[in-house]
Amino acid sequence: MMRTRPLKVALLGCGVVGSEVARIMTTQADDLAARIGAPVELAGVAVRRPDKVREGIDPALVTTDATALVKRGDIDVVVEVIGGIEPARTLITTAFEHGASVVSANKALLAEDGTTLYAAAERHGQDLYFEAAVAGAIPLVRPLRESLAGDSVNRVLGIVNGTTNFILDRMDTLGSGYSEALDEATALGYAEADPTADVEGFDAAAKAAILAGIAFHTRVGLDDVHREGITEITTADLASAQRMGCTVKLLAICERAADGRSVTARVHPAMIPLGHPLASVREAYNAVFVEAAAAGQLMFYGPGAGGAPTASAVLGDLVAVCRNKVAGAVGPGESAYTQLPVSPMGEVVTRYHISLDVADKPGVLAQVATVFAEHGVSIDTVRQTGKDGEASLVVVTHRALDSALSGTVEALRGLDTVRGVASIMRVEGE
Amino acid sequence: MMRTRPLKVALLGCGVVGSEVARIMTTQADDLAARIGAPVELAGVAVRRPDKVREGIDPALVTTDATALVKRGDIDVVVEVIGGIEPARTLITTAFEHGASVVSANKALLAEDGTTLYAAAERHGQDLYFEAAVAGAIPLVRPLRESLAGDSVNRVLGIVNGTTNFILDRMDTLGSGYSEALDEATALGYAEADPTADVEGFDAAAKAAILAGIAFHTRVGLDDVHREGITEITTADLASAQRMGCTVKLLAICERAADGRSVTARVHPAMIPLGHPLASVREAYNAVFVEAAAAGQLMFYGPGAGGAPTASAVLGDLVAVCRNKVAGAVGPGESAYTQLPVSPMGEVVTRYHISLDVADKPGVLAQVATVFAEHGVSIDTVRQTGKDGEASLVVVTHRALDSALSGTVEALRGLDTVRGVASIMRVEGE
Repeated sequence: MMRTRPLKVALLGCGVVGSEVARIMTTQADDLAARIGAPVELAGVAVRRPDKVREGIDPALVTTDATALVKRGDIDVVVEVIGGIEPARTLITTAFEHGASVVSANKALLAEDGTTLYAAAERHGQDLYFEAAVAGAIPLVRPLRESLAGDSVNRVLGIVNGTTNFILDRMDTLGSGYSEALDEATALGYAEADPTADVEGFDAAAKAAILAGIAFHTRVGLDDVHREGITEITTADLASAQRMGCTVKLLAICERAADGRSVTARVHPAMIPLGHPLASVREAYNAVFVEAAAAGQLMFYGPGAGGAPTASAVLGDLVAVCRNKVAGAVGPGESAYTQLPVSPMGEVVTRYHISLDVADKPGVLAQVATVFAEHGVSIDTVRQTGKDGEASLVVVTHRALDSALSGTVEALRGLDTVRGVASIMRVEGE
Repeated sequence: MMRTRPLKVALLGCGVVGSEVARIMTTQADDLAARIGAPVELAGVAVRRPDKVREGIDPALVTTDATALVKRGDIDVVVEVIGGIEPARTLITTAFEHGASVVSANKALLAEDGTTLYAAAERHGQDLYFEAAVAGAIPLVRPLRESLAGDSVNRVLGIVNGTTNFILDRMDTLGSGYSEALDEATALGYAEADPTADVEGFDAAAKAAILAGIAFHTRVGLDDVHREGITEITTADLASAQRMGCTVKLLAICERAADGRSVTARVHPAMIPLGHPLASVREAYNAVFVEAAAAGQLMFYGPGAGGAPTASAVLGDLVAVCRNKVAGAVGPGESAYTQLPVSPMGEVVTRYHISLDVADKPGVLAQVATVFAEHGVSIDTVRQTGKDGEASLVVVTHRALDSALSGTVEALRGLDTVRGVASIMRVEGE
């Protein structure tokens, strides 16, 4: 069944992931050929710095002209591991136009403009595979697109950013401060020199947009994702969570509304009970729960980043796309056929944990409780501690609309007896 | 892109899983059509008892002649949820011959004769998908066949039988005896009236054979899988495990030898540390670790059985196979191209936990230690307790060949001072 003409692969980008992809393509060439049904050949590598020595890569394959490479006409598959919006978007579109399928690890681009790219792939009869864009080597895109294609996904909830998980894990287990934990993450290579994309939740939000889109078969853009990072999490928040038998994780949560007519996508820190499987996800690992109508609750766990795991995901896609090329077919495409609207954060139903600094005098609790009642928010538990005229109130609510909860917090800030809102955090996973 | 001629599906078997498949095909028809790109229609249902009332299924579709149904010629996909070797095998082969692809949940058949069926599918240009045969709704077959197709899997280790996990969980957490826990599993519907297939490890061994075959791309038959069940596990074993900070699970373990030149597959109870993620898999849930060279350690968790979860897996496969039909292509087939031999249990490297009843007199430990040394087995820890002339020795070994370990146990049985071997259990997950 083996055909002899090799499939030609163009590699765009040769950094940590790209060089690992090239290495495995060479060392595992026989296995890949057996699994694909045809040999596969690295036909060109587009880089920015052509003079850098790249072990194991024939210098004759290296070019700085990525556009010419994807336009060559003999390329079967383009592997895009450049990242960022441009020139990646134009290169991918050009690849489709010139008869190549694409494997991409580019979460930012897929979150920003996935539906346009899915449509371009379909129009040109090419594949666009992107397992590596979400949660590294953990198979998550393929299970959602294919394994659960006969089911109805209601919820995706997980830890999809390793950097922030490492920081929160250190704050929780070692009592480190945020800056100290971030410094350690940077020293260990888990955080970049500019950690903004990770710690402000942009990276997780991009993944949430992609996951929500494929889980609910609708268009979810980056702007549709409510986003809060972890920069304001304090050791006091972690301590407060521990007193509740919880820990704090940065979660990406994509949900179908109870009536099935809309979806939501959000990224924010949340308290989760220590008994929840996500609570024990340590260091830079990722883990994602998927809840589907028939399948029930599934969990996927593994390394969420790193050169080798990401390369594994890219190569799995490369084999699939090459198999499709050999068969003269394309794999499952993406479709936003449900056209479900994305609701704003205010319509999400959630729970709050609120710490208030209040005056230590009679009647404060009654005043505070009245504000909750006026906003239709039911209180689950209150803990009151105080001395020397200062007191703190810790309130955990029942489930309510996020808009009602944030309205409650606003009103609490306006009370004379409330000196400050020490922290607000959502509670998930119960 | 929607074509109008519907794809015709024949359903073989209409029990718990089959009726759920039929129900979802009806209630989710629009979603399935959108995801496939063509409407999909239930064209016939083969059953043994045609008179039984089947809600939601048109009685005109029901037949007792499964052979005639798969030979009709207009069937695009056959869904086989009968189970067992015959007539399932002949029906599947006949389906391929008559131009139909097959989705099967039949672990016994795939373990017994998978490679023959994979070859038949390929010869006739049809698909054989079987996600539901292993670990219910948990996507495991597809990740191994596709997501990790560009990686090298070294180990698959997991809990793949819900019945035995339920029994062991009850013995561990409630201190129930084996019979009591089995009775509870039967009462709750987790165990069948004849629980042999589950408690003797046959079910798990079938899954291990399938997983080893697709993980290592080689032929692994049911007879190649070393199998031990849980019927001899006692509350004393669980208590002993707890003293070591462990619990007991029935594990399926498929490994590539360190030199890469052979593989092993085995099912047996084993002690695993409480800190291992598999230790916290409760009740009838399944969870499987996959270790790959580039991807690292991945875990998949979810409900391993039940009508709805299994139907979800069947329908995911049905969508994939229908998409392939619409595209005029076939999906990735199975290949045993590596032709790696399966080594016997004796060549597995593992650790033993051995409890001995011994005479309480000086020199016994020295005698016992000599036997271990003579067999080249290094001891990790020994715990000695005794009173009134009776004593017990608990030995945990370092890693050694299973043949050396079982040889050691045989020799120990021959010692005058060893009155009995109270329990032997392997230790995994460290």
